[in-house]
Amino acid sequence: MSDPVVLTRHRALIEGGLSTALAGSSFLHKVLRYHLGLEDEDGTPQRKTGKLLRPSLALHSAGELGGDLEKALPAAVALEMVHNFSLIHDDIQDRDETRRGRAAVWVIHGTAQAINSGDLLQALAVREALRSGAAVAQALVESTAEMIEGQALDLGFEGCPAGVRAYVDMIDRKTGALIRCAFRIGGLLALASGDTLDRLDDLGKHLGRAFQIRDDVLGIWGKEEATGKPAGSDIRRRKTSLPAALGFELARGKDRAILERVYGQEAVTDADVAAATQVLERLEVRDEAEGWLSESLGAAEIALGKAGFSRRGAEEMEELLTYLERRER
Amino acid sequence: MSDPVVLTRHRALIEGGLSTALAGSSFLHKVLRYHLGLEDEDGTPQRKTGKLLRPSLALHSAGELGGDLEKALPAAVALEMVHNFSLIHDDIQDRDETRRGRAAVWVIHGTAQAINSGDLLQALAVREALRSGAAVAQALVESTAEMIEGQALDLGFEGCPAGVRAYVDMIDRKTGALIRCAFRIGGLLALASGDTLDRLDDLGKHLGRAFQIRDDVLGIWGKEEATGKPAGSDIRRRKTSLPAALGFELARGKDRAILERVYGQEAVTDADVAAATQVLERLEVRDEAEGWLSESLGAAEIALGKAGFSRRGAEEMEELLTYLERRER
Repeated sequence: MSDPVVLTRHRALIEGGLSTALAGSSFLHKVLRYHLGLEDEDGTPQRKTGKLLRPSLALHSAGELGGDLEKALPAAVALEMVHNFSLIHDDIQDRDETRRGRAAVWVIHGTAQAINSGDLLQALAVREALRSGAAVAQALVESTAEMIEGQALDLGFEGCPAGVRAYVDMIDRKTGALIRCAFRIGGLLALASGDTLDRLDDLGKHLGRAFQIRDDVLGIWGKEEATGKPAGSDIRRRKTSLPAALGFELARGKDRAILERVYGQEAVTDADVAAATQVLERLEVRDEAEGWLSESLGAAEIALGKAGFSRRGAEEMEELLTYLERRER
Repeated sequence: MSDPVVLTRHRALIEGGLSTALAGSSFLHKVLRYHLGLEDEDGTPQRKTGKLLRPSLALHSAGELGGDLEKALPAAVALEMVHNFSLIHDDIQDRDETRRGRAAVWVIHGTAQAINSGDLLQALAVREALRSGAAVAQALVESTAEMIEGQALDLGFEGCPAGVRAYVDMIDRKTGALIRCAFRIGGLLALASGDTLDRLDDLGKHLGRAFQIRDDVLGIWGKEEATGKPAGSDIRRRKTSLPAALGFELARGKDRAILERVYGQEAVTDADVAAATQVLERLEVRDEAEGWLSESLGAAEIALGKAGFSRRGAEEMEELLTYLERRER
């Protein structure tokens, strides 16, 4: 499956903006260029950035609604910076040793400097966003605050997976806040009406859920050669995910006991991962999660129809939605 | 010694602003109100906030230069929030278990949620600052970035104290950036000229050095009943401080060997603290540091004379400078 045009059209522009925003010579700037995949550990330039979903969405919607791409670029870049500051700190919190197939910042530089590098990335993100205007910077910090609240909720679940409703509330913040903000930034820079902003918000909400649910499915049933993580890795990390939340809602008797044991202990073995995966499969949780994914995509399509995009721009978004449904990484 | 009027006049206003900015009902908002000293651990309101130096300076200079205090308040409050986000993360990095005589956030809620609470405080600080205007928010995030760079430099010194020049460069960022920003915010809100902003910057630089040097002296020779920390605590923590930097520059032979041993090891005993303190006293480092303190205060007074404050406002700043020279906590 080739990458959808929404994710490729502005890729070089976004990477250039990130490089410019992080061009300083300090130790922390180097660490950040490494984390973003703009450089390898030795400082050699490379291009191993992520999907760049959030900035791509911001630029696509700004362009579709008549905003100026040059003015939108700093805000788009800022979104990717906020996302990545949260990844640096997430990896510390979860003790995840790899990120996009490379060593996490805390593994290389220790927890203390990893905290500093994430802190700096948050500050520099706001500086970038302010170049696109105060309204956009305001939207960014509101969303940043919401994302962090979602992260705190997620950590609060640990070892005690939430019900499905609490799960949705959590991902709407942790993942949804920045994706909604991407569309909102596009709308703000195009001076869109309050009505349009509401519809963009709706689009972002459902697209964000779809994105996260696919992530959750891949976190259990994804193939290592595509995701870079062994199958079942979200069970091993006892991560709150839709399959886990559904499993806990559906499981009874022996199945429930297995899930409670696996998610309730400190160290999860290969056998535990296999046992919990079997329970989730017995309960047909994967189909159920994929049903939720289709539903979110359907809702996103409806919101997309009302967002005021051109026919071509809407078709390109449809291509992205199909990609999000099927992606293997 | 009674508190100088610069630190008392707007105290209730600043505390009110902090309470409003952190009035949310989420777990993290509660954690932040605890950290700021606005509530105890059970959520009972209290007033155990710190000196509130940075917001007090911002409001004093805004008022002196003809700015609107109401407009300046959010930015002043934002400065205190940035300072405190850095304290929450510092305490994790240094494994300091107490802060202002109370348990540090990471001790109560664990490292992961302490990281989140600091992250949130940084985001909320920008939201506050934006209420005072985009120029002020921009100044705040530039200073935040500089402060974090200073923190990274400080951590980089660990176990290998810097020379005096590297020390001054570090504190000008780690401590100086936000104090300079306090004066700059006052100037920006009063629409001061570029010249005045430069003089305020100078005032902030020297006042920041004086503040930090007194802190460093108290960190070794302060009295526990005043500082809340045992004497020599900065030696125990192998903290980069002016006395340590001077000691390393001056010590030869056996004295040098003692300092290198104490600052080079993981765990520092009471006997080590006593031995290192004796070396620093033999080298008359305390007098030397206090000489630097007087020099910084003298330079601050000269800058104060050019800052455009009223006679009364300048006298009140002089009172603050005297307080900073002599404070015991």
